[in-house]
Amino acid sequence: MRHQIDLNSDVGESFGAYKIGLDEEVIPLISSANIACGFHAGDPMVMANTVSLAATCGVGIGAHPGLPDLMGFGRRTMDVSLEEIGHYVAYQVGALQAFARQRGFSLQHVKPHGALYNMAVKNTEISDTIARVISQLDENLILVALAGPNRDELTAISKRHGIRIAFEFFADRAYNPDGSLVNRKLPGAVLHDDETAAQRIVKLVRQGSVTAIDGTEIELEADTICVHGDNPRALSLVKRIRDSLTDSGIEISPMGVFL
Amino acid sequence: MRHQIDLNSDVGESFGAYKIGLDEEVIPLISSANIACGFHAGDPMVMANTVSLAATCGVGIGAHPGLPDLMGFGRRTMDVSLEEIGHYVAYQVGALQAFARQRGFSLQHVKPHGALYNMAVKNTEISDTIARVISQLDENLILVALAGPNRDELTAISKRHGIRIAFEFFADRAYNPDGSLVNRKLPGAVLHDDETAAQRIVKLVRQGSVTAIDGTEIELEADTICVHGDNPRALSLVKRIRDSLTDSGIEISPMGVFL
Amino acid sequence: MRHQIDLNSDVGESFGAYKIGLDEEVIPLISSANIACGFHAGDPMVMANTVSLAATCGVGIGAHPGLPDLMGFGRRTMDVSLEEIGHYVAYQVGALQAFARQRGFSLQHVKPHGALYNMAVKNTEISDTIARVISQLDENLILVALAGPNRDELTAISKRHGIRIAFEFFADRAYNPDGSLVNRKLPGAVLHDDETAAQRIVKLVRQGSVTAIDGTEIELEADTICVHGDNPRALSLVKRIRDSLTDSGIEISPMGVFL
Amino acid sequence: MRHQIDLNSDVGESFGAYKIGLDEEVIPLISSANIACGFHAGDPMVMANTVSLAATCGVGIGAHPGLPDLMGFGRRTMDVSLEEIGHYVAYQVGALQAFARQRGFSLQHVKPHGALYNMAVKNTEISDTIARVISQLDENLILVALAGPNRDELTAISKRHGIRIAFEFFADRAYNPDGSLVNRKLPGAVLHDDETAAQRIVKLVRQGSVTAIDGTEIELEADTICVHGDNPRALSLVKRIRDSLTDSGIEISPMGVFL
Repeated sequence: MRHQIDLNSDVGESFGAYKIGLDEEVIPLISSANIACGFHAGDPMVMANTVSLAATCGVGIGAHPGLPDLMGFGRRTMDVSLEEIGHYVAYQVGALQAFARQRGFSLQHVKPHGALYNMAVKNTEISDTIARVISQLDENLILVALAGPNRDELTAISKRHGIRIAFEFFADRAYNPDGSLVNRKLPGAVLHDDETAAQRIVKLVRQGSVTAIDGTEIELEADTICVHGDNPRALSLVKRIRDSLTDSGIEISPMGVFL
Repeated sequence: MRHQIDLNSDVGESFGAYKIGLDEEVIPLISSANIACGFHAGDPMVMANTVSLAATCGVGIGAHPGLPDLMGFGRRTMDVSLEEIGHYVAYQVGALQAFARQRGFSLQHVKPHGALYNMAVKNTEISDTIARVISQLDENLILVALAGPNRDELTAISKRHGIRIAFEFFADRAYNPDGSLVNRKLPGAVLHDDETAAQRIVKLVRQGSVTAIDGTEIELEADTICVHGDNPRALSLVKRIRDSLTDSGIEISPMGVFL
Repeated sequence: MRHQIDLNSDVGESFGAYKIGLDEEVIPLISSANIACGFHAGDPMVMANTVSLAATCGVGIGAHPGLPDLMGFGRRTMDVSLEEIGHYVAYQVGALQAFARQRGFSLQHVKPHGALYNMAVKNTEISDTIARVISQLDENLILVALAGPNRDELTAISKRHGIRIAFEFFADRAYNPDGSLVNRKLPGAVLHDDETAAQRIVKLVRQGSVTAIDGTEIELEADTICVHGDNPRALSLVKRIRDSLTDSGIEISPMGVFL
Repeated sequence: MRHQIDLNSDVGESFGAYKIGLDEEVIPLISSANIACGFHAGDPMVMANTVSLAATCGVGIGAHPGLPDLMGFGRRTMDVSLEEIGHYVAYQVGALQAFARQRGFSLQHVKPHGALYNMAVKNTEISDTIARVISQLDENLILVALAGPNRDELTAISKRHGIRIAFEFFADRAYNPDGSLVNRKLPGAVLHDDETAAQRIVKLVRQGSVTAIDGTEIELEADTICVHGDNPRALSLVKRIRDSLTDSGIEISPMGVFL
């Protein structure tokens, strides 16, 4: 049984005059921050401020690199090559490392964003490319990947490149019996009851299992839980999750502490 | 009398399908490469390839950060704040550091590009901001700045931030009696004779002086000479300069070697 | 004495996943919409939807072209040439015309945005360039310009190019005795009392005069009043202005109706 | 037997300081110009100059809209919706119409670029969306589409939207027996002999047939031939094609003249 879990959230997604997300409110509630790096969201001003805020809150600082598609918020699959992906990730992680280094910190983790994340779920060659780049930039960096069917292959990839990997569970998403996420377009794909979601996470942490959408009980182990902070409704779920975990004696810590 | 001088050139300015500059030909001729970082020119693919090429040629690898104006190639003055400049530079230098680190190298220097360079010449607060950022990212980084009237102030800035500074001379530009560059729009601002340009540099290195546009002999000391590699004509000047320096017993070395 | 006035507001400033402004709420309250065209804000999806909304509400549809600086929201002065300005405006106005034409409408007006607007206030050559471009694209287009010291010169420019001009008053800004806007950085530059602002506008429309920041009474004639719709506070001022105008028997109409 | 054919080429693909293509040389050799519109290539300055050059040469002026991917030159498939495609095309065509209108011209045609063109070949819903947008912007606009297996369906689409369609043949590409293009990655996909290519086009125009890569003789009718102008080698093929057509008594005319 686990005693520790990480809560991560996508932050630093504002751009210029545009604001997305309640970063000031969600960052104090989480333990790891995935900070956008200027391709799908974020800009140098936002990155600097978000790194400062995460550092102040004692939150693990992570890069959240995406596809070069600001207009589509990095959510649209693009036919990019592995070489392009590797260089895009290096560029973005390097840029964020600069803001961390300036403030006396190192990055804790890298989590691909949006379409790039989904492309990596489907194609482990992409995860392999990203893992290689990460290991070249800083071997202490942790790669965040979806807890699910590819677990063994992803573990092998991270070992091959000498880095740690953190498996991620989505707080508000239903799971298929094979451990993959239920497609967002299907009914029931997104959980809407905070209490149910929070209890599901407590069980996941304690027992390493989750009830799939068809009622099946499946084994699933996760190191970090993805939560959202883009609206007051999302914030209330994060608080509920925190409370449930704490009440159950589970400590919320940055993934780098226990991995 | 100096025995060593650096030759620097702006490279890595291609973008996507767009090619600018004869990088493969000019990089072997210089000792320091100023590599564009994706704001005014360059992209992750180009940056990776250019760092590799510079490393292969034993050339000092430098960042060439610019304003966020790809359409204007970073040549248009923009009313950006000191805070924005600092963060833009950190972002771009950090991104290039990633490509260097991946290949086992460190950056040698940072030289602002185009309008940002010219803005820094006019406003030493900008140089101060850039020097501060550089020192926070890597105290071994060298700031490249225009050899000219602000020498003492720039030296003080670099000392305050604990970094080295390299003063730069432009191979093909005429100088005013106060050591500043003759405005490009004025007649005679650009030198067109290779032999004259090459001899001027030999004299500059040996005697620390240059003949201003009005015939005055002025003291000017430079650590690095800016040359161009964007056309065959420019390449022939670089070769001539190399030959003249070598014939005079002056060694061409990356600025980091002797500063 | 006037019986009609136009209320204009900057709308369509969202971009991709980023939302700025309460367009659905402010557009029904105004008579002319300045729609961003993709350079400083806006994108094709946002433009299409905003044109549809403005058309549904019977609001005059206008282009709000800006500088190519999404990161700075078009608010940063850039050293662009008159030729560049002309082509940037043609491009953006043409793009918006397409969305209007698709829906069976024509554009009513063009109002430069942010830094471009301010640059035009300082340099009437810029207004001349924009007026020329507008007249070439559609001679029925109205140019919106600041009511103030340059009135006569701007009127001459619009006549020279055979187009109409609308002079604009800012609902929430204080004026200098010469009819120019008080610099935003100075105390008192922005009005914070709705009732005062609304009464000032009624007086402006009825008497063609306004009290300057130093108490001087100055003559100022305006065809359109610029209001904001980016927050509930701004919306309440718009409603107050509408009520005060209506109570005073002044009709709120798109500028194209009465110019 | 046909007596007229159109030669089209992608031009106006430069961007800012970046130059692609020998537009000054190829435009006088063709009869229709596909001008990039700022998404995958081109900018307002380039568009203005290219429209002027095409107009001076009496060449049909066309829009060449692409995906919003300057870094990938619009060559990378993106998962964009039909609604996004429609609005992207409207935006780009509208922008180019402005430059044409300024100079007293109308656009003749619209040809999607790169990945968008290939996506439309595979999915006729995309062609339907583009045809609808075109018809709304100017019912005299001609849609350019690949001559091949979808001919009947595309003809029906163009009729439904009340616009003309021009079927396009690629001068330097091999064809499959079903009339589709041989995948670029396969051997023999690109023709390298000018004489063979030129004679193939003369036969295509005269007899409405072409020899497929497997030696099969297939019926194929085309209204316009796509040629390239990005290097001297490509220019020499265009000249050879012109000569062969002229020698065979076939007139080279903008598609709008005979469709």
